[in-house]
Amino acid sequence: MSFDINKLSINKNIPIPLYYQLKTAICSQINSNNLQPDDSLPTELEITDALGISRSTVRQAIIELVNEGYLYREKGKGTFIAKPKIEASFFQKLDSFNQEMIDKGFVPSTQVLDLCVIQGQPDINKKLMLPEQDELIYLSRLRFADKDPVVFLETYLPYKNFESLIHEDYTVTSLYSVLENTYFCRIEHAVRRIDAVPANAQEAKLLLLKLNSPVMLVRTVAYADHDMPIEYSIARYRGDRNTFTVELKR
Amino acid sequence: MSFDINKLSINKNIPIPLYYQLKTAICSQINSNNLQPDDSLPTELEITDALGISRSTVRQAIIELVNEGYLYREKGKGTFIAKPKIEASFFQKLDSFNQEMIDKGFVPSTQVLDLCVIQGQPDINKKLMLPEQDELIYLSRLRFADKDPVVFLETYLPYKNFESLIHEDYTVTSLYSVLENTYFCRIEHAVRRIDAVPANAQEAKLLLLKLNSPVMLVRTVAYADHDMPIEYSIARYRGDRNTFTVELKR
Repeated sequence: MSFDINKLSINKNIPIPLYYQLKTAICSQINSNNLQPDDSLPTELEITDALGISRSTVRQAIIELVNEGYLYREKGKGTFIAKPKIEASFFQKLDSFNQEMIDKGFVPSTQVLDLCVIQGQPDINKKLMLPEQDELIYLSRLRFADKDPVVFLETYLPYKNFESLIHEDYTVTSLYSVLENTYFCRIEHAVRRIDAVPANAQEAKLLLLKLNSPVMLVRTVAYADHDMPIEYSIARYRGDRNTFTVELKR
Repeated sequence: MSFDINKLSINKNIPIPLYYQLKTAICSQINSNNLQPDDSLPTELEITDALGISRSTVRQAIIELVNEGYLYREKGKGTFIAKPKIEASFFQKLDSFNQEMIDKGFVPSTQVLDLCVIQGQPDINKKLMLPEQDELIYLSRLRFADKDPVVFLETYLPYKNFESLIHEDYTVTSLYSVLENTYFCRIEHAVRRIDAVPANAQEAKLLLLKLNSPVMLVRTVAYADHDMPIEYSIARYRGDRNTFTVELKR
């Protein structure tokens, strides 16, 4: 099925801004119809004429949907439906990235950017309750869903406890499975801190984003039994490709 | 105490970028020393000289800390320590905004932007499991911590179930307390969906942000007993003023 301009309807008599109503109406059709990624949207002019609203209103709705990752534009070609966002329950679950991606129907893969032993970092050693001089393992990875980069992840672990981690190949092995199988060390809980920040130059380059696009910055201290901190990680998720869900109870 | 440039140290022999080490070192001093909001940072040139690194490295570190909300700049005056971010456990708890702010030591206040009855909105009525023609209460609020706007919040509720909600003054009353006290309706659980998006014109204006600055967009369906959906809300938090923490277990 293709996009049906006749199904877009807006109401000029309610206090909800027109551009916002149009956004909702477009989203609604993306979600409810059988539209596919890369299907094309009507032009701004077609929507303007069909709804009798100003072109700038239509443009605002479309720009925001592009910014939020629902649509994408190609110069001279038009506006198209984007791939659906990756809906992760990462804030709530300690599943591995690979498992979560597979559950969502994506093919995960990992590129290892760096794996080495570094000097203690005052801030990080403190979070891991290590003496300042203790060395750290530093692992930096770029993780993909269906070949698109979705998260840039830096991980720090105490070197003296986990020396052999340095010899693994994390393009094929999960860090958590090595921790469990080699060290019988299972992550039992974690504290995450979440911020929305503008992509810096390195993040933009790795995640194929424009500079200053929104990135979800997630910093985690992960603990094994007896509240022993094992891992500190800094993850940057592309804002336009990820959405996170949390269920909470009183 | 003032900022101590001699305590900044970086290591040129590790693979962690220098600007990033400098960021961490500055943050570490902000967190561990008794620095106060509005205390000044040494100039770029002073840091450049003290550490023997390039000015562009120093600039990158400072720009990122400004973007992330740790520092702020005033033209012709210098760079200063920003107010600490508001650390909310909003992703994990159903506390009211007011209670959360009071717990964190802020003075909360609320400005009601709009409160009215609107026609059913297909998408929202569906989330609230209402027939399409059912009217909604639309409540739009701007909420402040110590007079700074931190979240722009739009709330939709079924009108026919909660008609008298339209007569309350939400600058002084909490929506949840009216629901509980007048309707004996207590929110028992909620599903939140979290995105990092660029601020649009309206959000930027209300939250005093630059256009396209990162905003944490949190959409919530809140349920009473028997999984009855009661409330749909869209909250936009200033990225530079809010940080969210989540604790999770296997």
